[in-house]
Amino acid sequence: MTIRIVGSAVTKFGELWGVSPRSLAGEVFSGALKDSGLEKKEIEAVFVGNMLSGILAGQEHLGSFFAEEMGIANVPAFHIEAACASGGLAMHMAVNAVLSGRYKTVVVLGIEKMTDYKPEIVSTALMAAGSDEERSVGITFPGLYAIMAREYIRKYGISEKELASVTVKNHYHASLNPKAQFQNTLTLETVIKSPLVSDPLRLLECSPVSDGAAAVIVSSLSSKRGIEVLASEVATDSLGLAQRSSLTEMKATQISSGRAFEAAGLKPKDIDVAEVHDCFSIAEILALEDLGFFEKGKAGSAILKGDLTLGSSKHLVVNTSGGLKGAGHPVGATGVKQIVEIVDQLRGRAEKRQVHGAKIGLTQNVGGSGATAVVHIFKKND
Amino acid sequence: MTIRIVGSAVTKFGELWGVSPRSLAGEVFSGALKDSGLEKKEIEAVFVGNMLSGILAGQEHLGSFFAEEMGIANVPAFHIEAACASGGLAMHMAVNAVLSGRYKTVVVLGIEKMTDYKPEIVSTALMAAGSDEERSVGITFPGLYAIMAREYIRKYGISEKELASVTVKNHYHASLNPKAQFQNTLTLETVIKSPLVSDPLRLLECSPVSDGAAAVIVSSLSSKRGIEVLASEVATDSLGLAQRSSLTEMKATQISSGRAFEAAGLKPKDIDVAEVHDCFSIAEILALEDLGFFEKGKAGSAILKGDLTLGSSKHLVVNTSGGLKGAGHPVGATGVKQIVEIVDQLRGRAEKRQVHGAKIGLTQNVGGSGATAVVHIFKKND
Repeated sequence: MTIRIVGSAVTKFGELWGVSPRSLAGEVFSGALKDSGLEKKEIEAVFVGNMLSGILAGQEHLGSFFAEEMGIANVPAFHIEAACASGGLAMHMAVNAVLSGRYKTVVVLGIEKMTDYKPEIVSTALMAAGSDEERSVGITFPGLYAIMAREYIRKYGISEKELASVTVKNHYHASLNPKAQFQNTLTLETVIKSPLVSDPLRLLECSPVSDGAAAVIVSSLSSKRGIEVLASEVATDSLGLAQRSSLTEMKATQISSGRAFEAAGLKPKDIDVAEVHDCFSIAEILALEDLGFFEKGKAGSAILKGDLTLGSSKHLVVNTSGGLKGAGHPVGATGVKQIVEIVDQLRGRAEKRQVHGAKIGLTQNVGGSGATAVVHIFKKND
Repeated sequence: MTIRIVGSAVTKFGELWGVSPRSLAGEVFSGALKDSGLEKKEIEAVFVGNMLSGILAGQEHLGSFFAEEMGIANVPAFHIEAACASGGLAMHMAVNAVLSGRYKTVVVLGIEKMTDYKPEIVSTALMAAGSDEERSVGITFPGLYAIMAREYIRKYGISEKELASVTVKNHYHASLNPKAQFQNTLTLETVIKSPLVSDPLRLLECSPVSDGAAAVIVSSLSSKRGIEVLASEVATDSLGLAQRSSLTEMKATQISSGRAFEAAGLKPKDIDVAEVHDCFSIAEILALEDLGFFEKGKAGSAILKGDLTLGSSKHLVVNTSGGLKGAGHPVGATGVKQIVEIVDQLRGRAEKRQVHGAKIGLTQNVGGSGATAVVHIFKKND
């Protein structure tokens, strides 16, 4: 059975104080539906990826909540949570459900509303993705990723500039994406002079707190517009860093991407465009290596050289959306937004961000400090 | 493809103040695994149903959390939330995933820890399953179900005794179930003299706040011990009561059970034993009618006559576990516990609660005031 994405849409990401979760969901559902050319009644189930609505807004039961909002009450509807990988996991569940033969066409919604709450409330809420011991010592995600960055620097001697170049690349891409939270480019110097949040990670190496939503329509019906889902794979790891054998590898990414490449019958060199989980600068470097694009210790210099930037003569372009750093990181929406970006690239409608001739795309979405990873591989219709 | 439950286990339900969620999960996973005769390494994915851990304990990311606890880190792991239907929905997602051919054998864990928190915190948290307007006026679930009960009484003239007989039946069954939260029988008089919580519902017609966990192992491998999953169906409805066309029907139950009977090629009269969602006395009455066991207005008198009680000469026995009222209602665990009870009945190991000759069983698990319903039908191995 061939599974395709037949419609997709994303809202503007940012501090959307005047907009409710309902209207964000309504906007992307209408957009994706219109894009698909399907009618509402053809949508047979709803898969919602969201992390924080229960903790921040006291609203759970989000499957029924958003199905009602979409005007398709009574269909089966599901809320899937895996921290910042909630969106990617919702997509995976949707793919499984269509593969099972139970549904032909379903919608995946990734959504998060974070900026209506005080930053300290949000950072505490995000620690719901961490381990007991991490919470009990009071560490938050910048600290956890800083531990990984420190160890990476010790092992591979990466420079400040290499780390900072992740932000420079992703902000450049964001400046070409009207839906991105940030529209400004940044220089290496500005990033390196920004305040330390958790040594060695600086403010401009941390993804922001954001609001936003994204939706894709997944179908087993044939469609000329459809983008084929070649692989959808998930793996997990211990919640806490202390329980892992390595601080410079994300085993969940390695396992899920290994399985994804096998399922797709492809190798890393076959990927033209990828959206990876750059919640912090170090995270993109780890991701690119764990996905098999680079050997350990080598991704940073490639990014600094501009090899992964739009317009490079090299093959792979990474985070054309602006990534989590440039486009914003509404946590439950991110995994679905990554897919929307790849769909736009493979359909040749990414406008100023278009990677010319892109045929194969990949997304990698991470929960917590690597306890969940979801990898998808997509192919342009022939 | 035939999907079977090849192992199952449930903890004691109750106020388990000395036990952590980790140990509850560990207990049922070991129990279900032992029951299945399988080895840990054969479990390919984890599906967790839980509603309140994020809001009450600040812990989300429960797929990875419990996979690690089970000692099967790195497998795909998922957290599914749909209020009090979280457990049933996790089972449905697991069935889809096995049907998709992606996994052969997976574990479903339903779990909730509620009694460590103040009752007013828990009842506020539970309203995360309700609609905006319901929360804004301050109504809680006893009030919502009381509205349904009032309208039901107006329409069908049910007596106090009929309503109260749900509790009497379910406490009698609970008294035969060592895992039930309550081990005492109750008379009609005691129930009717208990304080009104929300007119017409009395204290002893409301399910308790509970801790507990349940697990089942779902597999496409053939097994002589396996109980066949004939149907797994879900439907939704508006979150709020005000948006529904009827207060005395749960459309989500009607739709999901209609599809389930169709998928199984069975009719309500074929069911020997059922676990239905009696969060309040009225809820069991609505369920029995919406499932097609009785015409509207008729279930209460059948319960009062004892037709659905163990030992009755009639065909169908309902809530042999004690139901939510007698056995307890740790919300995310309930949907899975219902399945464990049916498995025990169909495997002939329900001891004092055994329905002799039970061959076909059904479970109905509801989220909120009916915004999600999940219906499963199971068959004894020939």
